[in-house]
Amino acid sequence: MRITLINPNTSRAMTDKIAVAAREVAGPGVEVVAAHPTDGAAAIESHLDEITAARSVVDIIEADLAVGGSDAYVIACFGDPGLDAARELVDVPVIGIAEAAMHVATLSGRRFAVVTTLGRTLGRARDLLARYGMTSACASLVASGIPVLDLEDTGSDAFERIAALCAAEVAGGADVIVLGCAGMADLCHALTERVGVPVVDGVGAAVGLASAMVRMRVGTSKREEYAAPPRRHESVTSG
Amino acid sequence: MRITLINPNTSRAMTDKIAVAAREVAGPGVEVVAAHPTDGAAAIESHLDEITAARSVVDIIEADLAVGGSDAYVIACFGDPGLDAARELVDVPVIGIAEAAMHVATLSGRRFAVVTTLGRTLGRARDLLARYGMTSACASLVASGIPVLDLEDTGSDAFERIAALCAAEVAGGADVIVLGCAGMADLCHALTERVGVPVVDGVGAAVGLASAMVRMRVGTSKREEYAAPPRRHESVTSG
Amino acid sequence: MRITLINPNTSRAMTDKIAVAAREVAGPGVEVVAAHPTDGAAAIESHLDEITAARSVVDIIEADLAVGGSDAYVIACFGDPGLDAARELVDVPVIGIAEAAMHVATLSGRRFAVVTTLGRTLGRARDLLARYGMTSACASLVASGIPVLDLEDTGSDAFERIAALCAAEVAGGADVIVLGCAGMADLCHALTERVGVPVVDGVGAAVGLASAMVRMRVGTSKREEYAAPPRRHESVTSG
Amino acid sequence: MRITLINPNTSRAMTDKIAVAAREVAGPGVEVVAAHPTDGAAAIESHLDEITAARSVVDIIEADLAVGGSDAYVIACFGDPGLDAARELVDVPVIGIAEAAMHVATLSGRRFAVVTTLGRTLGRARDLLARYGMTSACASLVASGIPVLDLEDTGSDAFERIAALCAAEVAGGADVIVLGCAGMADLCHALTERVGVPVVDGVGAAVGLASAMVRMRVGTSKREEYAAPPRRHESVTSG
Amino acid sequence: MRITLINPNTSRAMTDKIAVAAREVAGPGVEVVAAHPTDGAAAIESHLDEITAARSVVDIIEADLAVGGSDAYVIACFGDPGLDAARELVDVPVIGIAEAAMHVATLSGRRFAVVTTLGRTLGRARDLLARYGMTSACASLVASGIPVLDLEDTGSDAFERIAALCAAEVAGGADVIVLGCAGMADLCHALTERVGVPVVDGVGAAVGLASAMVRMRVGTSKREEYAAPPRRHESVTSG
Amino acid sequence: MRITLINPNTSRAMTDKIAVAAREVAGPGVEVVAAHPTDGAAAIESHLDEITAARSVVDIIEADLAVGGSDAYVIACFGDPGLDAARELVDVPVIGIAEAAMHVATLSGRRFAVVTTLGRTLGRARDLLARYGMTSACASLVASGIPVLDLEDTGSDAFERIAALCAAEVAGGADVIVLGCAGMADLCHALTERVGVPVVDGVGAAVGLASAMVRMRVGTSKREEYAAPPRRHESVTSG
Repeated sequence: MRITLINPNTSRAMTDKIAVAAREVAGPGVEVVAAHPTDGAAAIESHLDEITAARSVVDIIEADLAVGGSDAYVIACFGDPGLDAARELVDVPVIGIAEAAMHVATLSGRRFAVVTTLGRTLGRARDLLARYGMTSACASLVASGIPVLDLEDTGSDAFERIAALCAAEVAGGADVIVLGCAGMADLCHALTERVGVPVVDGVGAAVGLASAMVRMRVGTSKREEYAAPPRRHESVTSG
Repeated sequence: MRITLINPNTSRAMTDKIAVAAREVAGPGVEVVAAHPTDGAAAIESHLDEITAARSVVDIIEADLAVGGSDAYVIACFGDPGLDAARELVDVPVIGIAEAAMHVATLSGRRFAVVTTLGRTLGRARDLLARYGMTSACASLVASGIPVLDLEDTGSDAFERIAALCAAEVAGGADVIVLGCAGMADLCHALTERVGVPVVDGVGAAVGLASAMVRMRVGTSKREEYAAPPRRHESVTSG
Repeated sequence: MRITLINPNTSRAMTDKIAVAAREVAGPGVEVVAAHPTDGAAAIESHLDEITAARSVVDIIEADLAVGGSDAYVIACFGDPGLDAARELVDVPVIGIAEAAMHVATLSGRRFAVVTTLGRTLGRARDLLARYGMTSACASLVASGIPVLDLEDTGSDAFERIAALCAAEVAGGADVIVLGCAGMADLCHALTERVGVPVVDGVGAAVGLASAMVRMRVGTSKREEYAAPPRRHESVTSG
Repeated sequence: MRITLINPNTSRAMTDKIAVAAREVAGPGVEVVAAHPTDGAAAIESHLDEITAARSVVDIIEADLAVGGSDAYVIACFGDPGLDAARELVDVPVIGIAEAAMHVATLSGRRFAVVTTLGRTLGRARDLLARYGMTSACASLVASGIPVLDLEDTGSDAFERIAALCAAEVAGGADVIVLGCAGMADLCHALTERVGVPVVDGVGAAVGLASAMVRMRVGTSKREEYAAPPRRHESVTSG
Repeated sequence: MRITLINPNTSRAMTDKIAVAAREVAGPGVEVVAAHPTDGAAAIESHLDEITAARSVVDIIEADLAVGGSDAYVIACFGDPGLDAARELVDVPVIGIAEAAMHVATLSGRRFAVVTTLGRTLGRARDLLARYGMTSACASLVASGIPVLDLEDTGSDAFERIAALCAAEVAGGADVIVLGCAGMADLCHALTERVGVPVVDGVGAAVGLASAMVRMRVGTSKREEYAAPPRRHESVTSG
Repeated sequence: MRITLINPNTSRAMTDKIAVAAREVAGPGVEVVAAHPTDGAAAIESHLDEITAARSVVDIIEADLAVGGSDAYVIACFGDPGLDAARELVDVPVIGIAEAAMHVATLSGRRFAVVTTLGRTLGRARDLLARYGMTSACASLVASGIPVLDLEDTGSDAFERIAALCAAEVAGGADVIVLGCAGMADLCHALTERVGVPVVDGVGAAVGLASAMVRMRVGTSKREEYAAPPRRHESVTSG
């Protein structure tokens, strides 16, 4: 089984980091191939970035299909950019890390808190909670104020700030913590130890769910909405 | 007052048609400038198309800003593609025709039906209903099965098929009809006459709402989510 | 185009004030006629007042119909009293300022706060949020504790108290402020300057929406619920 | 214990009929006094009628208070007109028959159907379902098309038509039937026999709930919203 | 009329206490028989306890049916354990004290707070709020941290701690208090005096509702879900 | 990794069948041990059965803990009986097949239909949809009318009847089918072929999710609600 893990931003360092997290969960017999765009957004921190990211996701899947395709795809950005479009392209599972983390969190405890990066991303996170039916399972949604790329700066105090936020959310009623950025994947186990409740990283969750679906032989439903699009998203010159 | 009306697909014929609908509502002192991408999707009928459309919306607004900008922007596609990103770019109003039509419909009657094009777009429409708080105001959401570009074919039976659908929805409990495609704008008044309840075209609705907001001096809130993005959606070469 | 603006309380001063706010938004070619009852509630601050206000709204519309009627009606009280009954009387648009302000607020930003007068009115405001599908778009609903008529007292500290509340709501997560009383209409622009996010006055919003609907030729749906009532609301002597 | 049962329309026949239904449930030691307005709406079948009815409810309670008041009040119209205002006037329980019927129905089975009179009243019924948290407990909401006063016509086929509707709803998934009009109170037991599931009449339900609350010494909360209004709903001449 | 009041834990002291509360509300002509299991859970404070409690409820009803049955059953534990199963066993009303208290609370004021025992029971309480449609009527749900059996210790400071919590909830927006444990029934009137808003004890509420339903001749709907089960819950030896 | 798969009914044949389905998904390195009670319910088709089943689940987990415990537990009955109680007993994952199937279904397509056994189980299924946030993702919930044990009868027409129901749901708008009974696990792949959309069996889904969580090192949150209960669910003799 081969799972393609898509980091929709251009950071090779982050891609490498999430590949490690993914492989830890993948289990025997599952190959994880990590990809990222060469051109694109350096980080996904705005709705404008999401458009770029969605295009990167689509491009990476199309390139992969051109060389035979994978058994499943994971979109490793907490906004799940391009998820619906990706499902139009393939009949295998496509999983976003936000949805994966939220689903797994509800299997671990009653209510989870999402700890994310910049406050400006909370609107998108709230939209996803609603879409996935997770609004009432979410005890709180908080921003750390830490930009995505600062998570790559090993000398920063990002871990301590995030740990403090997580602990506050647990004290306030969260049974589980959901990490709101793929770039936090490497912090997951240390945070679990620190805060004493399960901490869910979406990258691992998505790989776990994707491999389960492959073994179940459950892919993407191609009925109507996710059927192959009527036309390619061609460039057309107006006239 | 100048409102830029963005048709995110490449059809000049559709752009001309919706400009007519927009100007009818604009009222004295409001200039409507219609724009469409030269490269892009021929019609917006899939999630893949939406990504292309969102990029077209952003590009058109950026080009307009480069020459001084407008007092408001209207996104003339029922999926409201690129709406959030567009709001990051400007501090004037940006209105999508789906949200505009739904809001106006609730001011006209209790429950509306949305009559749209292909069945594959219903998922997106359902998402928008939820986002805009319109789920319980929507009596039904039905697809005509008519592709967007067939609406341009004046010899087709599209009007009759859509009129029959509208009449059925009214019989089934809809107080108001919402047209689920910009390409139906020219059918609005004839459908109203035929079905005996108000029929709302989002293009007119969005122009009406946008001009009201300009006169109210209410633009896009630039607090946090819609503030200018931290970085431009630059193309970055990974490394 | 002629819009009748109904202040359902008996204060001429408030009527004059909201007429100014309405005309500012009305735009060229729109005449705003403001009306208020000669007998009725001095202010609308209880459910008992709402019954009186609803009757006043109906009486004013019926009197206007007797002399030819208007192209639209606006009910200028944040409880939207008599809205449903008014829609039974006419086939033109009838807009309440609460619904208008809430709809426009969602076009400006993700989540709004409502800042209103007495705490006892919060129940009604919460009902309206639910009815209009705005519950999840409302970040908070707060009472200033200022009675309606104190807003007319130019020597009071009402502006400063309201401004402080608005600022607190913005700090707490509101992208937009909705003014919860017609009597605050004159504070709108000064508050916008003070708090740095859009502040929405329902009077202007309702006039803007009503004039848009008139130009769209979308009135009140007369299907079933808002059809003319089977009998007049006659006084009948029991027997 | 004395419960005042308010029929907000002017029909003495209906008042007599519901008094019978009320007394059947009242139990030993509970006196039911039935009242109706001498001037007012002949039936409550529109939003305009509701305003008149709300005023009648308030007037009847005020008249009763002037002669010592009752231990509880029941508003015997399925729109629960004037309920909030009535709660401002007293500190004893005030119960509407719609809320009473819905609450009791959920204690009898999972999902209920509401069978009501004219289709134009469905909007109000839907509002009440939402307000009382009953939307998902309501399997369906159907109108018989029978005007309120036709229920008084003993020669009509009203019973048969209502029975057929009830049976259809039971077949379609309703575990319980809620009668959507006080004027159907006398049909309750015969309908129960016919359709084989519990049929709930709001008049009996409200009397039962009111007497329970009196014995529990739980009245209307006078905190904030339902506190005595700041001013009487005086008639004020504008100036 | 005979109502069997089931305390699903083994405490005779608590059974005696709630029987007093029940009889106070029962009114003339209603006999209350209180029962508790001889073997079972000492208190219901976990999901494991709930399973034991549900079995106790079923066993007590079956034993009562064997000697002729009652006119209604009340389950006197705030988790409403065994409610659905009990409804399968009988065609008379079965009422849980959580549902009863919540329904009555909404007839008294807009929004209630639930004050309960251990924090670990909040998840179950939240489930019940959702099931009964009470989520938005619940202003808050708070745990006192007092174990159930400590409520029996007359020398403890339980009353003062609960009173302080109730007062804080009233200050924070609750119009009504719901007591979240049958063991608090004896505190109800003293708390009402202390906090100045209605305090609802579910035991009294359930007895009141049950007796009303008996007089209305509305029992448990036996349609499908609550019909007698296809097989008895026999012990079967696998093979 | 060792996963204990609990069939809460006494049928050895069903236990064997679901073990096969579970092992198919388990993947390399995962041992599945299937267990069922020797005494208990023959099938879980009523709320009474659920109480028995919940006790069986608890007993089986306790017996397993006594001999060292497993890495995860799966409850193989679509009512997820005893799920909350089981989570109190352990700190490893416990997954119900209803929740597992619903979560996986939403990863495969927009809206799923649940096809279940007897109509009397629909109430429980609807409760679970609400609890897991799946109400709006569920296009429909239908009963086949086939008793659980008839699924074991290889000569029956159960497959054809279920296939026909599934096909009807797909035609009516379902993108995915969820099988509403563990006893249908063996039909999953044949149904997928027949109806042309993914068909999700909860047994496989739960095993897949559980093994993913074990590899993620995410167990059950032991914070408050699912902490070890204060007392064992001892048998106590009242006094």
